[in-house]
Amino acid sequence: MANVLKTDLYELSMVAAYLESGRNPVATFEMFVRRLPRHRGYLVVAGLAQVLEYLQGFGFDQDELTYLRSVPALSGLDDFFFDRLAQMRFEGDVWALPEGTLAFAGEPLLRVTAPLAQAQLVETFLLATVNFQTLVATKAARVVEAARSRPVVDFGSRRAHGPDAGVLAARAAYLGGCAASSNLEAGRRFGIPVSGTMAHSFVMSFEKESDAFQHYVQTFDSDATLLVDTYDTKNGARLAARLGPAVKAVRLDSGNLVMQARIVRELLDEMGRQDVKLLVSGNLNEQRIEHMLGKKAPVDGFGVGTEMVTSQDSPSLDGVYKLVEIEEEDGSKSYPVKLSASKATRPGAKNIIRRFDRRNKMLSDLVVLADEKSVEGQQIMVQKMRRGKMIGPDESLEKARERTRKGLSALPPRFRRLRRPETYPVRHSQALSKLFEDNRRG
Amino acid sequence: MANVLKTDLYELSMVAAYLESGRNPVATFEMFVRRLPRHRGYLVVAGLAQVLEYLQGFGFDQDELTYLRSVPALSGLDDFFFDRLAQMRFEGDVWALPEGTLAFAGEPLLRVTAPLAQAQLVETFLLATVNFQTLVATKAARVVEAARSRPVVDFGSRRAHGPDAGVLAARAAYLGGCAASSNLEAGRRFGIPVSGTMAHSFVMSFEKESDAFQHYVQTFDSDATLLVDTYDTKNGARLAARLGPAVKAVRLDSGNLVMQARIVRELLDEMGRQDVKLLVSGNLNEQRIEHMLGKKAPVDGFGVGTEMVTSQDSPSLDGVYKLVEIEEEDGSKSYPVKLSASKATRPGAKNIIRRFDRRNKMLSDLVVLADEKSVEGQQIMVQKMRRGKMIGPDESLEKARERTRKGLSALPPRFRRLRRPETYPVRHSQALSKLFEDNRRG
Repeated sequence: MANVLKTDLYELSMVAAYLESGRNPVATFEMFVRRLPRHRGYLVVAGLAQVLEYLQGFGFDQDELTYLRSVPALSGLDDFFFDRLAQMRFEGDVWALPEGTLAFAGEPLLRVTAPLAQAQLVETFLLATVNFQTLVATKAARVVEAARSRPVVDFGSRRAHGPDAGVLAARAAYLGGCAASSNLEAGRRFGIPVSGTMAHSFVMSFEKESDAFQHYVQTFDSDATLLVDTYDTKNGARLAARLGPAVKAVRLDSGNLVMQARIVRELLDEMGRQDVKLLVSGNLNEQRIEHMLGKKAPVDGFGVGTEMVTSQDSPSLDGVYKLVEIEEEDGSKSYPVKLSASKATRPGAKNIIRRFDRRNKMLSDLVVLADEKSVEGQQIMVQKMRRGKMIGPDESLEKARERTRKGLSALPPRFRRLRRPETYPVRHSQALSKLFEDNRRG
Repeated sequence: MANVLKTDLYELSMVAAYLESGRNPVATFEMFVRRLPRHRGYLVVAGLAQVLEYLQGFGFDQDELTYLRSVPALSGLDDFFFDRLAQMRFEGDVWALPEGTLAFAGEPLLRVTAPLAQAQLVETFLLATVNFQTLVATKAARVVEAARSRPVVDFGSRRAHGPDAGVLAARAAYLGGCAASSNLEAGRRFGIPVSGTMAHSFVMSFEKESDAFQHYVQTFDSDATLLVDTYDTKNGARLAARLGPAVKAVRLDSGNLVMQARIVRELLDEMGRQDVKLLVSGNLNEQRIEHMLGKKAPVDGFGVGTEMVTSQDSPSLDGVYKLVEIEEEDGSKSYPVKLSASKATRPGAKNIIRRFDRRNKMLSDLVVLADEKSVEGQQIMVQKMRRGKMIGPDESLEKARERTRKGLSALPPRFRRLRRPETYPVRHSQALSKLFEDNRRG
């Protein structure tokens, strides 16, 4: 319930005018992305679980209605409007790409078919949820790919767009392939493994670095990771190496990480501590990780923060939610086409058919009308809700994460490149193209 | 309570090791920003209200403790640790720059003095909150400046980093000078004026554009804004102009906004509708607004979304929270200085003295030690909490917004430029510099 006002005022203004008009058709909206963010060859879809949770709980409570009555733009509306809001639940159908599915520009990520007012009101929350989590899951997949099977841990909470964005970013990053997150609430809420060590301030709070290390190792006597670059990195690493088998790893967080990693690795090896892993963090992203590993930096794992959780190089996903089909109460259908500027929308409820070669590598996608029959390939959109009720059980985050992994291994490398990837082929069926042409106006 | 796990695991690991060491000194941490984001000449500080709310409610409930006991990294710790967490409240002192204050690189935005464990545990939430809101308030101030006293409305919720980021972004944008937000939850929670009109889908859901407009105007018969560019913009504007005095404004959301605005303004004026205001939206930012107004586009107000709420050109603020002073139980003080790489921290609890010229324009800032006496100028940090209790009443968001406005009018234009602003002079007092030199190590 507490999420229903996390929406734009105009969703409610439009609903008021729909009610005034006396029409109550069933509308189909689709969410899609017109263009992929810069340097992205694919999207990893994420956020659907939160969307479904929201739709199941959709409704206005008394406090929310009291607030709405106080909004100047709405206060002139009569009780009919507020009574209708009070009764409203989400009673629609939802089709979607399951979380972790790879998607491309122009493909529906989500399709909602519901009484027009309901389908309209949920727009803002759906977009905010799927745009953000898909953005971060996609970024994380790139970072994880760059790390070439070394674990990547999300450290980004402090630079996420607020404390709640940190929790959702941790979820999306895990879904995109990260091994763990530092965020405890993400651990509690989503069962994500949590990970973390110590900050420079911890070391600085003791008189001597060796005191800090000793107390830490005494506290975590079976598994301690020590941050060794607070003062002199070689000294720090040497101290850590002497503290026995409890020390499982050391972390570097500043300076020239390639050079520092080599120095520390060599020192640890000389001291017979080949068992101690070397983790690095500090302003990392997919390019810097690729660079480090290209230089053969002896790194066993990465902590990645700001750049991943804000998708720094491309910090928004411009997903839109567009009306594609209207069914009047008499069963007649219409297919709206907007023609202004460059923002034309393809009408019609759609599905996606994905085609694979014999070795199970992705070949191309075909966007078809939802009711098109006998098209060869795998239909990848799945119905998640029918008349407001969930179909089947909730999906585990682990399963979605596994879907990402499998999807990426099925996508040929030229579409996964970190810079200037090729454009994966997405075509429209003849029936879909014909519907567009038939419904153009102007 | 529900926010206490929105933190990094390592904050708890460090606290466990502090407890193990038996030391419980009082620590002072400061939050500051090492460098301003690109093209920013100042920051507008925001987020303090949420920080203070969090600190007042700080504590772990049974469910949270149960989760923490289940975390593998913590599960080996004995009951002493969890019992201490169960009893913990925030009992520290907080000094801060009030919201809406202008701040610069290297200046403390926030200072926390508390028992070490408490001061440590609150780090992640404080950073996530102040980093994000300050980022957006700063971006919004730039957009508002570019709009030259025309109202700017936040439309960004759907592209914010999740639904909650949209609410906080609306708050920060209002604090930074926006006139309103589309976000209803922000309206309810923070009393921000809400604003909005209709989407293209609304127009498209009716058979004819004129039907859509008529129903909207009948519903909002004293104040309607119509979106006129769904099909043919001139047609749309003409229809709107004919719908009588209820139509207070039209909005354009696509195409060449400068050209479209001129055409629509001319048409409205020809039809005797000089009273109808012209609003524009669609991928706007401070540069595009500056460009439009430079071309004398006849625009009365702006809706700004994605670029503002994500601070698109610089989507993170790298605020850090650093240990600057430790007071042992015997009263002895130490001043940690970290020397690794380029990340040296200036020790000592600090204040900021701001100096103005005779016309009340800002001249320069001097960062001083908190206990330095008789320094000329205005001390701008304020104590907000003492021993865990608030000092004085909560501040209204309106007051913070007004502080932003006054602050910006006191900052000479060369520091406010949208591109390549000059660097505002921030100096350190002799006493502060001496403390740094005296405590260097290595």
